[in-house]
Amino acid sequence: MSAARGKFISLEGGEGAGKSTLLAGLRECIEQRGIALVQTREPGGTSVGEAVRAIVLDPGQRGLAAETELLLMFASRAQLVREVIEPALRAGQWVLCDRYADASYAYQGGGRGQPVSRIAELERWACAGVTPDLTLLLDLPVAIGRARAAGRSDADRIEVEADAFFERVRVAYRERAATEPDRFRVIDASQSPTAVLQAATLALGALIGKSKP
Amino acid sequence: MSAARGKFISLEGGEGAGKSTLLAGLRECIEQRGIALVQTREPGGTSVGEAVRAIVLDPGQRGLAAETELLLMFASRAQLVREVIEPALRAGQWVLCDRYADASYAYQGGGRGQPVSRIAELERWACAGVTPDLTLLLDLPVAIGRARAAGRSDADRIEVEADAFFERVRVAYRERAATEPDRFRVIDASQSPTAVLQAATLALGALIGKSKP
Ligand SMILES: Nc1ncnc2c1ncn2[C@@H]1O[C@H](COP(=O)(O)OP(=O)(O)OP(=O)(O)O)[C@@H](O)[C@H]1O
Ligand SMILES: Nc1ncnc2c1ncn2[C@@H]1O[C@H](COP(=O)(O)OP(=O)(O)OP(=O)(O)O)[C@@H](O)[C@H]1O
Ligand SMILES: [Mg+2]
Ligand SMILES: [Mg+2]
Repeated sequence: MSAARGKFISLEGGEGAGKSTLLAGLRECIEQRGIALVQTREPGGTSVGEAVRAIVLDPGQRGLAAETELLLMFASRAQLVREVIEPALRAGQWVLCDRYADASYAYQGGGRGQPVSRIAELERWACAGVTPDLTLLLDLPVAIGRARAAGRSDADRIEVEADAFFERVRVAYRERAATEPDRFRVIDASQSPTAVLQAATLALGALIGKSKP
Repeated sequence: MSAARGKFISLEGGEGAGKSTLLAGLRECIEQRGIALVQTREPGGTSVGEAVRAIVLDPGQRGLAAETELLLMFASRAQLVREVIEPALRAGQWVLCDRYADASYAYQGGGRGQPVSRIAELERWACAGVTPDLTLLLDLPVAIGRARAAGRSDADRIEVEADAFFERVRVAYRERAATEPDRFRVIDASQSPTAVLQAATLALGALIGKSKP
């Protein structure tokens, strides 16, 4: 008998919303239940994906066209789906991913103005039907996220964008969540890390409940 | 008064067909007529394009999915069109490009089996309507091309493919030429370099003739 298919959870949100922080807490929570977990990130997670990540985050790539950025993000994603996510899910492992396709709707769509229809068409064949079972959207006013992220090392090519860019990203994320309320759980990321983890854990519990016979 | 729009010429063909050899001869022929020329190549031709080229030709990237390869090729192309080709044409310069969108129909389509409709849809928005005025297809039996290319340095990730792959590439190139006979000129690349250059020069003359008032 083959194992039940694993669950796929993606974390989304603007810069400094607390995705990496939450990931660590969630990971512990899932592994304590004896569930085998694969943690990955976007862009990246594969050899080609990390090469793409180096390109798109490189502040030297100032002139990168919006179309180029969109194609690169989906190139990284197409590889991640086939090399990492789908094989893990098929083996019964859970996958926890720091950003996934919704990030393209938010950043390349909302942020850079690429049409939603174009992104949806790429998602259709590049992601091969692999959709998260649960997407945790860490929603936060832009100014707070930027203040949190400010302490870190040099800003990458996306972090140097203006506030208006990140406002559009936030709006696009919320619109996406409204369109697919069953898959999304919007978490108020201005809360303490403990409260954010608690809200995420609750959503996780609902997911585990669903998968019971 | 703004300069007349430049002409865009692409060179296509399988491995070792003689594209680089012809390019040098054509370049001389065009520049002797006092025409400003930009020479470029695919994948590559821009900073991001050359980074993409390094990925797709890297023999270490064995597991690259066909979808990933297609997206990377169009990422390089989207940038090349916007950063190099279109600005040059608008400034009245001619552009000579070693491979362009037809190569995706041949390699990712014919070679790797990606659907033509998918490639056409990507071309529609990634290339922003920039189509060659003339495409020279160097047509050659696969065995001859491979023998010619064999003398060179280590084979890249595409050159290591089996003959059947390159047979499909050749068929797809010829089908494309048959679909757009006005734009394509198919040249028998088994001829001597001098004869190939002569055939290409003739096609060039026709193009120049067309652009006269
Ligand atoms: N709920 C929270 N309240 C206050 N500070 C937080 C909270 N969550 C995370 N932080 C802090 O904010 C900063 C950014 O958090 P984190 O790196 O987790 O965000 P991120 O969403 O992963 O950012 P990025 O998109 O840049 O990867 C860190 O210094 C982190 O300690
Ligand atoms: N018409 C020809 N007849 C015989 N040999 C040729 C001819 N044209 C080129 N060659 C030789 O064949 C080899 C491959 O030619 P070239 O590098 O121009 O091909 P190419 O199409 O650019 O290959 P690639 O697709 O790998 O870049 C070279 O050694 C070149 O000197
Ligand atoms: Mg992070
Ligand atoms: Mg060549």
